[in-house]
Amino acid sequence: MSADDSGAGVVTAAVLIIGNEILSGRTQDANLAFLAASLNEAGVRLREARVVADIEAEIVAAVNELRARWDYVFTTGGIGPTHDDITAECIAKAFGVKLIRHPEAEALLRAHYEPDKINEARLRMANTPEGATLIGNPVSVAPGFRIGNVFVMAGVPAIMRAMFDGIKGGLKGGAPVKSVTVPAFIAEGTIARDLGALQARFPELDIGSYPFFRAGRFGTSLVLRGTDEGKLALAAAELKTLIRTLGAQPLDKEPD
Amino acid sequence: MSADDSGAGVVTAAVLIIGNEILSGRTQDANLAFLAASLNEAGVRLREARVVADIEAEIVAAVNELRARWDYVFTTGGIGPTHDDITAECIAKAFGVKLIRHPEAEALLRAHYEPDKINEARLRMANTPEGATLIGNPVSVAPGFRIGNVFVMAGVPAIMRAMFDGIKGGLKGGAPVKSVTVPAFIAEGTIARDLGALQARFPELDIGSYPFFRAGRFGTSLVLRGTDEGKLALAAAELKTLIRTLGAQPLDKEPD
Repeated sequence: MSADDSGAGVVTAAVLIIGNEILSGRTQDANLAFLAASLNEAGVRLREARVVADIEAEIVAAVNELRARWDYVFTTGGIGPTHDDITAECIAKAFGVKLIRHPEAEALLRAHYEPDKINEARLRMANTPEGATLIGNPVSVAPGFRIGNVFVMAGVPAIMRAMFDGIKGGLKGGAPVKSVTVPAFIAEGTIARDLGALQARFPELDIGSYPFFRAGRFGTSLVLRGTDEGKLALAAAELKTLIRTLGAQPLDKEPD
Repeated sequence: MSADDSGAGVVTAAVLIIGNEILSGRTQDANLAFLAASLNEAGVRLREARVVADIEAEIVAAVNELRARWDYVFTTGGIGPTHDDITAECIAKAFGVKLIRHPEAEALLRAHYEPDKINEARLRMANTPEGATLIGNPVSVAPGFRIGNVFVMAGVPAIMRAMFDGIKGGLKGGAPVKSVTVPAFIAEGTIARDLGALQARFPELDIGSYPFFRAGRFGTSLVLRGTDEGKLALAAAELKTLIRTLGAQPLDKEPD
């Protein structure tokens, strides 16, 4: 944990992925990486993610733990028209409010579907906790919603991304985290000691080490992260010197 | 939640992904989908997954919550030689035992590295909680370990998979969950009501609905999961009839 990560003015978030299909291995989640990168750009630190099954008690418990702990919670999944889509009910229970048919959401759905296509299953997608505000869905109309610090979005990646693009401007972010990546054909175990010393000298940065294997050779990508660009540049210069001292060459990017 | 999912003889698991690189969006996690599918094949139900940062208090808390709640916990990440690799220390704290240098792990590392390459950073990879047993690493030697119901594995996908392949035979699994997938060019909202009724008639199965968009058309993949192949076949036949009744055709597989 970097020193500035727990300081005043840092805005934090959690992602809650709701869906049996991720836990069964049927679907590879594609939303976490997008939200992680996008929140970071917005100056919001993603600090935890969870995947839970389509089970009411588990969703309610996770929502209540996460919303108490982090500044924002973003959920994905479970807001469609079928019986396994129970997110709206669960969020209402978590907040201890009634589930209502949101008039604006109902109007959107009735305007979108032909009169013979609107049915009770589709109208369930207009249900929100009382007091929620809608999150627009430019892809397929049925909206997400926000209540308190919880943003409820679709699980289909194209829809989730469109929803997030609509809300990100309204997030209260801190200073965005910048990063510098320095890859080299050097083993983690060779640089580990000096890297730990570098981290100790730059406590306001977060220095990570990620091994890679390319063309028969082991290498390591060293990633420096922090909000202070001056410190980042200074630490990166020291790191490059260190790599050369250990007999390797810092690379501009990870080899393909 | 399907009825048989909470019954006697069901073996459950959680995955705990440890690593800032996933939360920062730098790295797309590749381990969860593999573990979800592999555990399912072994008759173990993955019921929850979490991603936490490289922060001791968070790792310790997550390990203790998950190991109390589920039959097995599988962690990935944080067992390398660098300063940000703190998983072994955290697991020892979670179990309230000492961190020791595991003699067998140390012997493996000393046999693998040339004498001038073995150093304190690399030897840290031989540290385990007292009482742990090793998990073999056929890729890069440094082992994972098991303590209690917690299996600690590497984060690099190729290494994690090799480690898991070595332990999966020893897992005590329940009946494996089988699945039948029936895709069709039918909207979720069109089939939702009847699908809910089908789920109600087959409470021992878990019926999921996953929309797709191909070649300009919306469709839905309907997935039936359960341990009873007879019930699965019966429900799948009813589902196909239902799809035809609603004017669509069940497909053999999701269109490319």
